[in-house]
Amino acid sequence: LFFEGPEKKVEIVMKGEGPSLRTYTKEFWTEVVKLARAQILSHVSNEYCDAYLLSESSLFVFDRRVLMITCGNTTLAHATLRIVERIGLEKIGTVIYERKNQLFPEYQPSNFYDDVRLLRKLIPGKSYRFGKEDEHHIYLFHLDRGYAPLKGDATLEILMHGIDPESASAFIKGEKHNLEFIRKQTGIHKIFPNFKVDDYLFEPMGYSLNAIRGENYYTVHVTPQPIGSYVSFETNLIENDDIEKPLSRVLEIFKPLSFDVLTFSTEQKLPSVEKLYSLRRKVRSELECGYAVEFGSYYRPTQTVEAAELLEVKD
Amino acid sequence: LFFEGPEKKVEIVMKGEGPSLRTYTKEFWTEVVKLARAQILSHVSNEYCDAYLLSESSLFVFDRRVLMITCGNTTLAHATLRIVERIGLEKIGTVIYERKNQLFPEYQPSNFYDDVRLLRKLIPGKSYRFGKEDEHHIYLFHLDRGYAPLKGDATLEILMHGIDPESASAFIKGEKHNLEFIRKQTGIHKIFPNFKVDDYLFEPMGYSLNAIRGENYYTVHVTPQPIGSYVSFETNLIENDDIEKPLSRVLEIFKPLSFDVLTFSTEQKLPSVEKLYSLRRKVRSELECGYAVEFGSYYRPTQTVEAAELLEVKD
Repeated sequence: LFFEGPEKKVEIVMKGEGPSLRTYTKEFWTEVVKLARAQILSHVSNEYCDAYLLSESSLFVFDRRVLMITCGNTTLAHATLRIVERIGLEKIGTVIYERKNQLFPEYQPSNFYDDVRLLRKLIPGKSYRFGKEDEHHIYLFHLDRGYAPLKGDATLEILMHGIDPESASAFIKGEKHNLEFIRKQTGIHKIFPNFKVDDYLFEPMGYSLNAIRGENYYTVHVTPQPIGSYVSFETNLIENDDIEKPLSRVLEIFKPLSFDVLTFSTEQKLPSVEKLYSLRRKVRSELECGYAVEFGSYYRPTQTVEAAELLEVKD
Repeated sequence: LFFEGPEKKVEIVMKGEGPSLRTYTKEFWTEVVKLARAQILSHVSNEYCDAYLLSESSLFVFDRRVLMITCGNTTLAHATLRIVERIGLEKIGTVIYERKNQLFPEYQPSNFYDDVRLLRKLIPGKSYRFGKEDEHHIYLFHLDRGYAPLKGDATLEILMHGIDPESASAFIKGEKHNLEFIRKQTGIHKIFPNFKVDDYLFEPMGYSLNAIRGENYYTVHVTPQPIGSYVSFETNLIENDDIEKPLSRVLEIFKPLSFDVLTFSTEQKLPSVEKLYSLRRKVRSELECGYAVEFGSYYRPTQTVEAAELLEVKD
């Protein structure tokens, strides 16, 4: 039983003009989500944001910014084109489309190169890879247009592989497979305090969480499957440039074998450290779209010689 | 311009009975190679072995052993079935089928799971993965039958990613793109002394080498493309359990960013060390087919922060 946890993501920011994205109808966002081959499961709102939980990850709609994250076999590029078409390219400040390296790309309906060919029908852009093709990496495409993000406009993504089996067990069908237990056991609903939380437990396994507080969000997606276990965490709440605190909290919950950290910011450099892990590779570029993007890939050093994994191959 | 260097490999060893594999006609081996979607380009022979250079890697035929390695978009499982069918499963001591993790699995005609489903039509077997699914790894399928390899029956594979651009340049079309220059520059034809060498330079880039001496062989396949550069080295010549010497020579030529070492032997453990690299993961299992198989994944520690790679995406 394999599920592709590693995600595609798009973030689109409007310039000053045009109506708020939150005035677009629920029908429109339902159509967008459907174009990605996903469904809306539930949503929460506050004065700044509508946060939708999807059958494959999340959609956050702010007045001038939309963020969509999809896992599994989704077609996020199609959804992206629909949003850009609706807003109008001329009203858009930036579009950033990402793909984390996937575990079983052969089961995907497209790869990053296919996506870029599609996106370029509407969006002139540049393509990058952060990290080597044979290691963990992030593909990134951005609208080729100067943009000046506001100071403090920052995003932290923590992308974790090889989840500790005990940590993963709470997210797999069984006696303790319920939201209450997961929250109590992991504290995942209060990684930051006082957020409005919307979470969902999939059958027979898997978990998604959206959380909002004012203009801030965090979102967690757990793929606990023994083959290809994966968790992503993302937030735009970075206080005093401190990513160490949220990083420690998240790693404490999932104890992954390895993880990547991706940051977007207007600063030169966000600090990033983790004592228990070794740095495998660090990549940083200041993109023409105004963001400094930093990618770090970390792993837990080998302590012992492992045995090979016996695989069950179903007919 | 991308080429999938990371290979599939099969090794089949006969029991005592039956005619030598070398009595099979050239037409038969041509058919086998064609079933893998490759072609024979040339061959060299000595009293123990026929070594064929293929359009995608190599085929070595000994009296009671056949070894076939194929890269690119080949279908080695089909070729494997044909060989097993011809010999007859009852006359076979062991079949070991491997796949190195590939860079662009989405362009492959099958994945390892598909291959196993096909191989099981004739060959009852067990499947393993050495290494994690999100890192460098080797998939391995073997005939589920007890077998006792002779002492000294050992294989060393060195699978290298991220070839030093200067080292790679000799293998790419240009002024110096010829066999004589490559041999002189790299010494690749004399990694071990006094071997009979057959090498081939592909247009516009790429290089393959088969070398035989008595019962020993070594083979090298170079994919110098900037996207997905890769080199494989394999030999059955391991003197005094020393893999450090050939490893050093090969790493000196290609200076890869990372590499995997895979060893098959009848001993508990082959020594494996390399001062310039860090160990990422080590996996060892003693398989029911009689071989101890050890996998080590190494990388060059990060010295600096790199810039993201700008990608050219062709329409």
